[in-house]
Amino acid sequence: MIKTDILIIGAGPTGLFTVFEAGLLKLKTHLIDALPQPGGQCSEIYPKKPIYDIPAFPEILAGDLVNNLMEQIKPFEPGFTLGERAETIEKLDDGTFIVTTNKGTQHHAPVVAIAGGLGSFEPRKPPIPNIADFEDKGVAYIIRDPEVYRDKKVIIAGGGDSALDWSIYLADVAAEVTLVHRRNEFRGALDSVEKVSELSKLGKIELVTEAEVKGLYGNDNLEGVTIKYNSGEEIQREADNFIPLFGLSPKLGPIANWGLEIEKNAIKVDNSYDYATNIPGIYAIGDVNTYPGKLKLILSGFHEAAIMCQSAYQRINPGKKYVMKYTTVGGVQGFDGTVKAAKKEVVKSIV
Amino acid sequence: MIKTDILIIGAGPTGLFTVFEAGLLKLKTHLIDALPQPGGQCSEIYPKKPIYDIPAFPEILAGDLVNNLMEQIKPFEPGFTLGERAETIEKLDDGTFIVTTNKGTQHHAPVVAIAGGLGSFEPRKPPIPNIADFEDKGVAYIIRDPEVYRDKKVIIAGGGDSALDWSIYLADVAAEVTLVHRRNEFRGALDSVEKVSELSKLGKIELVTEAEVKGLYGNDNLEGVTIKYNSGEEIQREADNFIPLFGLSPKLGPIANWGLEIEKNAIKVDNSYDYATNIPGIYAIGDVNTYPGKLKLILSGFHEAAIMCQSAYQRINPGKKYVMKYTTVGGVQGFDGTVKAAKKEVVKSIV
Repeated sequence: MIKTDILIIGAGPTGLFTVFEAGLLKLKTHLIDALPQPGGQCSEIYPKKPIYDIPAFPEILAGDLVNNLMEQIKPFEPGFTLGERAETIEKLDDGTFIVTTNKGTQHHAPVVAIAGGLGSFEPRKPPIPNIADFEDKGVAYIIRDPEVYRDKKVIIAGGGDSALDWSIYLADVAAEVTLVHRRNEFRGALDSVEKVSELSKLGKIELVTEAEVKGLYGNDNLEGVTIKYNSGEEIQREADNFIPLFGLSPKLGPIANWGLEIEKNAIKVDNSYDYATNIPGIYAIGDVNTYPGKLKLILSGFHEAAIMCQSAYQRINPGKKYVMKYTTVGGVQGFDGTVKAAKKEVVKSIV
Repeated sequence: MIKTDILIIGAGPTGLFTVFEAGLLKLKTHLIDALPQPGGQCSEIYPKKPIYDIPAFPEILAGDLVNNLMEQIKPFEPGFTLGERAETIEKLDDGTFIVTTNKGTQHHAPVVAIAGGLGSFEPRKPPIPNIADFEDKGVAYIIRDPEVYRDKKVIIAGGGDSALDWSIYLADVAAEVTLVHRRNEFRGALDSVEKVSELSKLGKIELVTEAEVKGLYGNDNLEGVTIKYNSGEEIQREADNFIPLFGLSPKLGPIANWGLEIEKNAIKVDNSYDYATNIPGIYAIGDVNTYPGKLKLILSGFHEAAIMCQSAYQRINPGKKYVMKYTTVGGVQGFDGTVKAAKKEVVKSIV
């Protein structure tokens, strides 16, 4: 059982910054995220894309935003349960919560902060009848560790950046890479499109276009796929792995069943005070929440995190008064023993 | 008469970022600030001090925060009325406002955003009976242009960083620099204290300690000061300029008389929606406002600015629907013709 003060569900920018604001209040934090790395959408969907509306950054790549936040929160030693989805929540008699993931990891905390963004990003799956039978037995929708594919026969499906970029990457790792796409045209960064074209000419990627994977076969593990051309022709091809990369689609997921008040696929909160949900002890911050005038901006998540942590502090330390000190004045004392502080003034006689 | 869409009172971080959020909505902005440069406290009081709680900056000097914001808002070409204090406001029959400064500059806008921080920073003045008679005639509380003091006889009073730093600076500019302080000990950065000590030994700064300036004399312009030692002894000393640097103390100032609901020296706003004050068309954002759970954090000012601009947009464009586009997707179109945008995807046949 993992124990913490504030259990944060979602490790996107808002969830990460919550670690910092909680840390200033000497509260410990632990984050759960379904993705294999922190950063949420910023890391998974658009790490190389610029954001222009983060205050005081005229331009910052989404991946760099995450790196900066990770550096900022490091002194507060957050825990991470990554690659697991928060599945169930149970409120104990003492008002604390146990949150269990889809892999059975249990977390215990007096406060839960849902910073789940647009939800967990579930891969869009192709409509192949027996695809579920081969999941984790050759079929994957997200590439977590490319080494899994070393010297394998890999079939990738898709026509966007993910399909292009992973085909390029795996061309050097896998024994064979076949890229199947139902059109002749690919949509992605110019560099990637050109690189795939080049690797195709060198025979390092085989392109099968105007075609779709329609069937999968094998005993226990995947052994091959059936590809159907738009013309109607069908071929079979041996494969150890099939990776359809058709994008991710956000789903609120199991959180939708936690008894929280939901409106338009988001969690209703009290924005006139502390971003609390209808269940005392559970807050929702960032893109996952909704209230009158809500803007789904990263900078709003930061503010909501700061406010919410004050309320969490009161819940965890009832009756205790917290006097806010500016970081410029009071510095930052990490749980790891590090201290950041402005240079102190000296009082010195000079006559 | 200066005309704009949103007249922003206060050019600290919150006021500056309002320019950006308004700009994304194609709204023009103009800022008024009593200080001679943008940045508010960050520029005037602690430009060289680090802030640790700006999201995604593990550490940033206050002055750099302001520089970054100035760069970020540049494409939206904000106007500035600096070194003037917003004095009076008049609501016209059409619901728009005219704001006049202490120097008579008039501004006309349909929306006023008060981002006045802790108020205008008024210098703490020493209790010398006739000091007001010599203001701008040799007496100044803020150094705006050091060249004014070239080859003059200057008397500085104070024992903190400002007094130390300006004594050092003016030692190379003025004919004579005398630093008067009522104690033997100075309180400031170690570097500054040591430098003053060194310049004193070289005869470039004359230190008069355990003493205070108690009187001023002159015909029209300042001609000299009376200094009284703690021991009771008094001396007179010729001077062209007397600069007491006893710090700045924030005062809500004339805004307090605008008919706004005030609570604990701050302006009450509706935090459950748009940070509007009790006067329709006037908003208050950043440290100047108050609401249940308010945190006087720079990051909260940023959020309040974003929310407030949406409401201002509705007021200025009644009935018009605004569809928010993420800057990563829609880019940033400056009023100066510049465009920032993420690299577009290409759609390309590669077979």
